Amino acid sequence: MEHKDMRMLTEMARGARPAELVLKNAVYLNVFTNEFLSGDIALAGGRIVGIGTYSGLKEIDLTGKTVVPGFIDSHVHLESAVVSPAEYARTVIPHGTSAVAADPHEIVNVLGEAGMEYMLRFAEMEEMDIFLNVPSCVPATSFDESGATFSSEEIRKYLPLERVLGLGEMMNYPGVLFGDSEVLEKISAAKACEKVVDGHAPSLSGNDLTAYTAAGITSDHESTELEEALEKMRLGQWIMIREGTSCKNLRALAPLLLDERYAQRCTLATDDKHPGELKKEGHIDHMIRMALAEGVKPEAAFRAASFNAALRFGLKEQGAVAPGFAADLVVLDDVRSVSVDSVYKKGKLVAERGTLKSDISVSIEKELSDRIHDTVHLDPVSAADFDTCGRERKVIGLVPGQILTTDEGCAETADPERDLVKICVAERHKNTGHMGLAFLKGYGLRRGAVATSVAHDSHNIIAAGACDEDLAFAVNRLRELRGGMVAVENGVVLAELALPIAGLMSELSAEEVQAAMDQVKAAAADLGVNAEIDPLMTLSFVSLPVIPALRLTTRGAFDVLKFELV
Amino acid sequence: MEHKDMRMLTEMARGARPAELVLKNAVYLNVFTNEFLSGDIALAGGRIVGIGTYSGLKEIDLTGKTVVPGFIDSHVHLESAVVSPAEYARTVIPHGTSAVAADPHEIVNVLGEAGMEYMLRFAEMEEMDIFLNVPSCVPATSFDESGATFSSEEIRKYLPLERVLGLGEMMNYPGVLFGDSEVLEKISAAKACEKVVDGHAPSLSGNDLTAYTAAGITSDHESTELEEALEKMRLGQWIMIREGTSCKNLRALAPLLLDERYAQRCTLATDDKHPGELKKEGHIDHMIRMALAEGVKPEAAFRAASFNAALRFGLKEQGAVAPGFAADLVVLDDVRSVSVDSVYKKGKLVAERGTLKSDISVSIEKELSDRIHDTVHLDPVSAADFDTCGRERKVIGLVPGQILTTDEGCAETADPERDLVKICVAERHKNTGHMGLAFLKGYGLRRGAVATSVAHDSHNIIAAGACDEDLAFAVNRLRELRGGMVAVENGVVLAELALPIAGLMSELSAEEVQAAMDQVKAAAADLGVNAEIDPLMTLSFVSLPVIPALRLTTRGAFDVLKFELV
Repeated sequence: MEHKDMRMLTEMARGARPAELVLKNAVYLNVFTNEFLSGDIALAGGRIVGIGTYSGLKEIDLTGKTVVPGFIDSHVHLESAVVSPAEYARTVIPHGTSAVAADPHEIVNVLGEAGMEYMLRFAEMEEMDIFLNVPSCVPATSFDESGATFSSEEIRKYLPLERVLGLGEMMNYPGVLFGDSEVLEKISAAKACEKVVDGHAPSLSGNDLTAYTAAGITSDHESTELEEALEKMRLGQWIMIREGTSCKNLRALAPLLLDERYAQRCTLATDDKHPGELKKEGHIDHMIRMALAEGVKPEAAFRAASFNAALRFGLKEQGAVAPGFAADLVVLDDVRSVSVDSVYKKGKLVAERGTLKSDISVSIEKELSDRIHDTVHLDPVSAADFDTCGRERKVIGLVPGQILTTDEGCAETADPERDLVKICVAERHKNTGHMGLAFLKGYGLRRGAVATSVAHDSHNIIAAGACDEDLAFAVNRLRELRGGMVAVENGVVLAELALPIAGLMSELSAEEVQAAMDQVKAAAADLGVNAEIDPLMTLSFVSLPVIPALRLTTRGAFDVLKFELV
Repeated sequence: MEHKDMRMLTEMARGARPAELVLKNAVYLNVFTNEFLSGDIALAGGRIVGIGTYSGLKEIDLTGKTVVPGFIDSHVHLESAVVSPAEYARTVIPHGTSAVAADPHEIVNVLGEAGMEYMLRFAEMEEMDIFLNVPSCVPATSFDESGATFSSEEIRKYLPLERVLGLGEMMNYPGVLFGDSEVLEKISAAKACEKVVDGHAPSLSGNDLTAYTAAGITSDHESTELEEALEKMRLGQWIMIREGTSCKNLRALAPLLLDERYAQRCTLATDDKHPGELKKEGHIDHMIRMALAEGVKPEAAFRAASFNAALRFGLKEQGAVAPGFAADLVVLDDVRSVSVDSVYKKGKLVAERGTLKSDISVSIEKELSDRIHDTVHLDPVSAADFDTCGRERKVIGLVPGQILTTDEGCAETADPERDLVKICVAERHKNTGHMGLAFLKGYGLRRGAVATSVAHDSHNIIAAGACDEDLAFAVNRLRELRGGMVAVENGVVLAELALPIAGLMSELSAEEVQAAMDQVKAAAADLGVNAEIDPLMTLSFVSLPVIPALRLTTRGAFDVLKFELV
């Protein structure tokens, strides 16, 4: 900051000069002392210059309202909202979100550095802080055919950036435990920049968890049970309590926030959340509401939603309503219902009563934009490509309500009437022509086909079909859409959503995206898909070769426990 | 860390390979969850590799003992212990101290960069971390004739160093409030390096305190009352609870540690503590004992003494008994009495039952050593130099038990029988021949003279004498000693302590220094000095031109309220 600006802010703080804006008569959360206090909050130059008795060029009376620090999502994959980062921001800002720590793991699997660059353009928006953690595990395994590889070399390039907080969730825990050079190099690179490393090790405990933590991995967002979270917290990990679309851990972990001994080491995170739920329920505000309903004190809930996350990431000027801090503020009509009156980002009113004050625009250079929108590279397929020629293929069994799968032996032909359909993963990044084929049991599809280019973590095209013709039609339709989600029958598109941004995200609004996704799901249900499962998300996880027991890759079925193609 | 070292530590953490040393069956403080837990603590490579069930090449059974993180003094001027930094370390390590955040304000006033360099040599010792904060206010005022000036240019040079935590206490609060360019430049320089700025603003409150804090000053160690500390904490300042030789604030501020809402933002500090008290009472361990006696929970007291200080300064791998953290450990026989059994620094046993395990040696290059030992530059003086020639001089009044002084008008001659003696401040850095003369009331001296080269903040020679001959003799004696403390009478040295290190510190042991200081004080008392005042410390503060009402500089008496020479 220039000296003249520092002088001006100091004059305002002293009360010798009116502030730009004063929020008069506010009750506010003091995160340092964990109490609600009252005063006038004076703002200028994007910061809070003082709290006490102040006059401003503009004054807003907040009698009866409460001011808390802007909410921070401590771990999120923005791509999971299926909308562009700008639309994501439009969606969550009115809910009080002022910053997210995003791990662009999905888009980087598709686009490598171009994906990182694209996200960095959005990190420049002023209405919300999009901080990034550099994805640590791209591709997820050496069996994956992703669009890009992010080695320690690429990671070292991005870690020093100001908008980068650290290294994203280190899912490769065997690599940590057994000292894989690349993994150690990535962790060392983060430490060398004085940045953090986020964790992901749901299956570890005891000495293995200790070793993983001792390597410098200092957060967890995968705990589903209290004892699991406590074990990690005791080792020094921050606990990012998660409540997203598929993983909902807040109720189980709320006791951490209920106990003052533990509450200070917790943050809130959504990890993956769909656009409809973001619109309907909200974002971090929804988690705070849930926590309050569990009996958590507002001081602890709002602090976990703000200051704790800032502490975890070393964000020195965020997360507090205090002099010198960024004026990232949420004005609440009511604390217990977390009803947001208005949202300030760096002192600017960005949302009021659920509505953005001005649109968010981010400029992306044409070359980068073209690259982002051109990620589906495969030749058209035909029914013959799906012919197994009577050879046996593995049968992957679905488990309702879980992303675990079972190994159901082998089959030679599909039999939709007996709930056995064909499934394929078609490589779509480099037009290698690689295609894995298997059978899927428990999906329920009777007719037609369902396909999506959101397929963890490599995001090839995955499709399940009752007949080879519709399988081919669905894959070809996604090729035409440059990525998307589709349900087809007899060569007719029943419902679809184009995802031209990396094959992962739409250009449409959150409402439109959710409506289209709902239509695809409804069409899939009409085609017979088991009512107990999400037709799209279930498919998306069948390709992820790190969750037992059996998965499908572009090279065929993969036994996760044996860690080999079968 | 090299990959092979990381792999070895991970193997040990996994339990696949014995650790170097395992402290078996320990009860330990977990600072993340604020609870005492138990387990084996495995150490290797200077770190804690794991806590759980472990075997080691060496094992020590700690059944019945408790392990807490090494203690951190969050604000200290090592020079106040009047011993070398090595001797300081020898003195405090057996008391459990593993790190200090030292502000070398005194030696830098004398020696500038050479003083900083000297302290940095000690910062390389392995037995204790000596971290430095760069002195922000050298000289204290433009009226001071110090040995050196530390401008933003010098400060910018030292701030980036790894051993430097930030900018030392910003005493020039008017400079902050009224936007002095040099002050703003110093603060900006610290922020640019992502380092902290310590505060010192005992007289500020309300909007002025807010402005001072908003400028980026994030700690306080001057609070003497609870409300004062709470006001600062609410603004975001860390509260460094202080208990030193002259300033004792722990009892008044203990309520902060008693309340879990506040305890997490408190650290412990001694600021200035004499060698005898360090030996007798202890260091941070003494403060913890006091806090426990006030009813503070051990979890809160030990955490304030360790982890909180590490958090305040961004020391990511210190302050916790947890995997990956430095193995800086204190083993206690008993928690409540804080009786130290042994002390580990980076996994090495450095003290056991009050005794250092090996001596501390630090190598100082000859040129630097010579410079440090050659700081008293003034020509010999004679009684005639103290002759006021019958002209009036100001009378400075002492207030027993306080460092405040009063303006007692003027006098023409000393009158020891009426408790009015002559006092001088003789410039001793650059042999300018400058000497300020005044009279001192309330000191009690009847005969002889008392002199010291520890005279805040410029550390010129200050002497009070009943006759001009003894004044001259005392000043000349300090000149011969190259700095020190002395009591003389009729041309005879009654007691003395040489302080050849910058005129501030002795080469002797803490016991010897304390014994010599006690002898000088006893001799001063024999010469009549008021029993209610410390003869040396009282003199040391008469030269500090920032505390009301009247002070003596090398250029004469100084009215602090008018901020001018009188």
